[in-house]
Amino acid sequence: MSETTTAGNNVPSDLEIAQRAVMKPIGEIAAAAGINPEALELYGPYKAKIDPSKLNVAAGAAPGKVVLVSAMSPTPAGEGKSTTTVGLADSLARAGHQVMIALREPSLGPILGMKGGATGGGYSQVLPMDQINLHFTGDFHAITSANNALMALVDNHIFQGNELNIDPRRMTFKRVLDMNDRSLREVVIGLGGPAQGIPRQDGFDITVASEIMAVFCLATDLNDLRERLGRITFGYTYDRQPVTVAHLGVQGALTMLLKDAIKPNLVQTIAGTPALVHGGPFANIAHGCNSLIATQTARSLADIVVTEAGFGADLGAEKYMDIKARIADVAPSAVVLVATVRALKMHGGVAKDRLKEPNVEALAAGVANLQRHIRNVEKFGIVPVVAVNKFATDTAEELDWLLEWCAAEGVQAAVADVWGRGGGGDGGDELAAKVAVALDAPHAFRHLYPLDMSVEDKIRTIVQEVYGADGVDFSVPALKRLAEIEKNGWSGMPVCMAKTQYSFTDDATRLGAPKGFTVHVRDLIPKTGAGFIVALTGAVMTMPGLPKVPAAMRMDVDDAGNPVGLF
Amino acid sequence: MSETTTAGNNVPSDLEIAQRAVMKPIGEIAAAAGINPEALELYGPYKAKIDPSKLNVAAGAAPGKVVLVSAMSPTPAGEGKSTTTVGLADSLARAGHQVMIALREPSLGPILGMKGGATGGGYSQVLPMDQINLHFTGDFHAITSANNALMALVDNHIFQGNELNIDPRRMTFKRVLDMNDRSLREVVIGLGGPAQGIPRQDGFDITVASEIMAVFCLATDLNDLRERLGRITFGYTYDRQPVTVAHLGVQGALTMLLKDAIKPNLVQTIAGTPALVHGGPFANIAHGCNSLIATQTARSLADIVVTEAGFGADLGAEKYMDIKARIADVAPSAVVLVATVRALKMHGGVAKDRLKEPNVEALAAGVANLQRHIRNVEKFGIVPVVAVNKFATDTAEELDWLLEWCAAEGVQAAVADVWGRGGGGDGGDELAAKVAVALDAPHAFRHLYPLDMSVEDKIRTIVQEVYGADGVDFSVPALKRLAEIEKNGWSGMPVCMAKTQYSFTDDATRLGAPKGFTVHVRDLIPKTGAGFIVALTGAVMTMPGLPKVPAAMRMDVDDAGNPVGLF
Repeated sequence: MSETTTAGNNVPSDLEIAQRAVMKPIGEIAAAAGINPEALELYGPYKAKIDPSKLNVAAGAAPGKVVLVSAMSPTPAGEGKSTTTVGLADSLARAGHQVMIALREPSLGPILGMKGGATGGGYSQVLPMDQINLHFTGDFHAITSANNALMALVDNHIFQGNELNIDPRRMTFKRVLDMNDRSLREVVIGLGGPAQGIPRQDGFDITVASEIMAVFCLATDLNDLRERLGRITFGYTYDRQPVTVAHLGVQGALTMLLKDAIKPNLVQTIAGTPALVHGGPFANIAHGCNSLIATQTARSLADIVVTEAGFGADLGAEKYMDIKARIADVAPSAVVLVATVRALKMHGGVAKDRLKEPNVEALAAGVANLQRHIRNVEKFGIVPVVAVNKFATDTAEELDWLLEWCAAEGVQAAVADVWGRGGGGDGGDELAAKVAVALDAPHAFRHLYPLDMSVEDKIRTIVQEVYGADGVDFSVPALKRLAEIEKNGWSGMPVCMAKTQYSFTDDATRLGAPKGFTVHVRDLIPKTGAGFIVALTGAVMTMPGLPKVPAAMRMDVDDAGNPVGLF
Repeated sequence: MSETTTAGNNVPSDLEIAQRAVMKPIGEIAAAAGINPEALELYGPYKAKIDPSKLNVAAGAAPGKVVLVSAMSPTPAGEGKSTTTVGLADSLARAGHQVMIALREPSLGPILGMKGGATGGGYSQVLPMDQINLHFTGDFHAITSANNALMALVDNHIFQGNELNIDPRRMTFKRVLDMNDRSLREVVIGLGGPAQGIPRQDGFDITVASEIMAVFCLATDLNDLRERLGRITFGYTYDRQPVTVAHLGVQGALTMLLKDAIKPNLVQTIAGTPALVHGGPFANIAHGCNSLIATQTARSLADIVVTEAGFGADLGAEKYMDIKARIADVAPSAVVLVATVRALKMHGGVAKDRLKEPNVEALAAGVANLQRHIRNVEKFGIVPVVAVNKFATDTAEELDWLLEWCAAEGVQAAVADVWGRGGGGDGGDELAAKVAVALDAPHAFRHLYPLDMSVEDKIRTIVQEVYGADGVDFSVPALKRLAEIEKNGWSGMPVCMAKTQYSFTDDATRLGAPKGFTVHVRDLIPKTGAGFIVALTGAVMTMPGLPKVPAAMRMDVDDAGNPVGLF
């Protein structure tokens, strides 16, 4: 997290810390994690793919318990959710637990733009961070290839006679690049005359927004992957019938392109904790969690699996519970909510450039945001643990106030300095102890809504129960789409909300815990392969742009071939 | 080569042969090749990247000699150049030589379309052929990323104020995908209003057509790669000055994206011969050879390096000699010209569906094509060896006639059955023996033209000396471009001819050894990063399309995750 590393103290950059860390050969990490050599496919000395079908897992062994790391509503101040995930796992390992991490893979596009990677920060990172952030084992490239192979095959089908009667004006699937490339958001393709295809309006998304990414992350195995790929609706016929990949008959080829990518990637933290870093769907138009296969593989190997979900708990945790945890029994036994004094002060009305100043009043005002997230997690049957991710500018008074507030709210909380001291050091000991207790506490997990509820009511339930809205307002196109979904028999799918992560409302500027608002659903997108219906509230960017001075400007390699300027 | 495998006998498919072959762990192959473990980065059990900077090569040791495998003018009947390259190397190894192969990587796009891979065929293949043909170690994906990062950065620069004064109507660089996607040949990007970029006409090429691919394959090391990337001209200013990657300042970021891809990939043949498979530029608008780094790495490890160049000797061999062999001292010590009875009969006027019928007269008529290629190779100071790649339908009379003709022409020739019997069997023994003799024969390598010759005269020299044309005709735009090249100081670069591979002329239908023709240069493209000037004769397709029934339709994976329907 670049935000974290420039916090004004003398800690070296994430890249410097990562490059100074001494890694163990990945075979040693695997052996310690109980992974037999036959299941391991090395990608250089410090990365490996694991073939789950070749693991010698003892039959009947109970799968590991899941700790889901989520957060308060994020702010530009940075919350450090990945950092806390890594540090917590290191601390749990330090306390003697058999732990494995399951994280998302970073997307290359934002890395060249402005955002840090998704590999944690400070002394709580997964390694080799430069390789994980650059191409890694090629999974995203395989997904890009599968996505674009599909669209090349679709446009070729139309060009070659269009036997399926596909309406080029009603295509719902786009090509993708793992790049921030705003010029490709809206394009016209197929120009140049009869030999070059059929002209049509089109656009490109970033790879993490591809439905194939979501499918990849929700598939239980290779056969389920093929089934789900076949169910993807990429467009409609001239008489408005959905056309799927199975209609085109290329789900086999797409599966072939993904056959190696689907194996989870093993890496290690600075402290040597094993981590599976695999898959990375958007947290708005998709569910924002690492692959189900990675989560399940980790559970088959470790007693505790620490994983995270994208954005705040209103989005990430809700989707984990209501989408991912319906496909397989991966319900968490504990939930951690990451909060920072800085971000809470921002929710309390402080401007970004004044967050370093002590301000307990603003903290007390902003804590309502955390409070709503705590109450929300409890609705799934789990009392969360609050992790206060420490920043150098936090005062003792602010930290004490926050811990006392948590105690009064009836939730466990701990200050964690996993960024500065590392979970492998003592930075996360207290947090780990409280999470360990929470894991053994009795709880009764439940989904927020049943699948046989109408789509309209599912959305209303999420919006009222989780966001705290008075109600939901459907646009005219959204109402039309609801009718189509009903007609096509898709109403039994869960809902995937695409909403700004910065606010409980659909207005990114309304921080804290707003009341008395309505959420506006402007459109619905059925993702029949992934198996959910995306509800769009406000504008969602599926192809980011680059800033005026992209991060790429300062990147290079040194004479030894090591990257410089990468975070 | 799918063409070869469907030749009507009972030999199993290339994929079946490959899947039945027992591979050695790549570490064993590396050890036998003298590669120290520190230089080896495993990618699964049967692929590895080699870091040339970590090889313990004895100082002062003479680099290995290069055998360049080229061919007569190719026909749809299939010549088996890669198959012969692999088989010849296996046979040389069988005869006790220390051999390494250097080959191009296959492109994914054509694989999903209709073409076989580039990994040889029958019992002369490099393995694991399925993985080499599908993503491999991700090199092409890294090149795609670097190419598209550049164009996203360029369009972002224009969007953010266009300090460099780039003219969006004079962009010479395109985005790429490793896909056959005709709908992307001509597009309009940047639509959607002020927030989405500057609208402009654009298009996509296939990745192998990217100048970054050519740069990648001609770079001598990481620093040279950065220099060459910086020299790429991607467009012109409003006042018609060239704009380079160095002007934009992103050569470091592009180098970072390529830092791992640039390491050659080690695999093995069915017979266990080590092979470096690395890079794969187009053989029309680029030079069509594997990476220079792979060739040089192989030469530092083996006594004999067997490599190939794309298309027939008029294109591939000429470019190897006049482009690649000018950058480093990789001039071949022997050249093999692959010919087949079938293809020669086609050049003699026989239709494709009648090639199985014996026809010595047509053979005698078509052999003029081979003759011109022989005489051409001799102009570089090397007497070639003819490899007659045997097909099941060849008659003894035809083969004998061809061998006698070669003897009368004063060149060594041998019939090779490396496809059916393998070079690891006795299928290439005689060819290997003759190549070994040729390697030790005295020769005086020379380029066809000096670099200080004018671009016009360089083209005229190639066209007259190699193609046998009476002369060259420049279109009005080409003449204008010649003046620009002169003005910009680019005249000292070698020329890279983009011409149909099927004919010595620029008309694909004129087979054999035509006389009395003129070659028409319709445009010139300076590739200032790669360091050559492309001369376009006729239409060159830089983004292929898919056929009516793409090969992807029959592809899938079995329950064990192995590919089916791949060739």
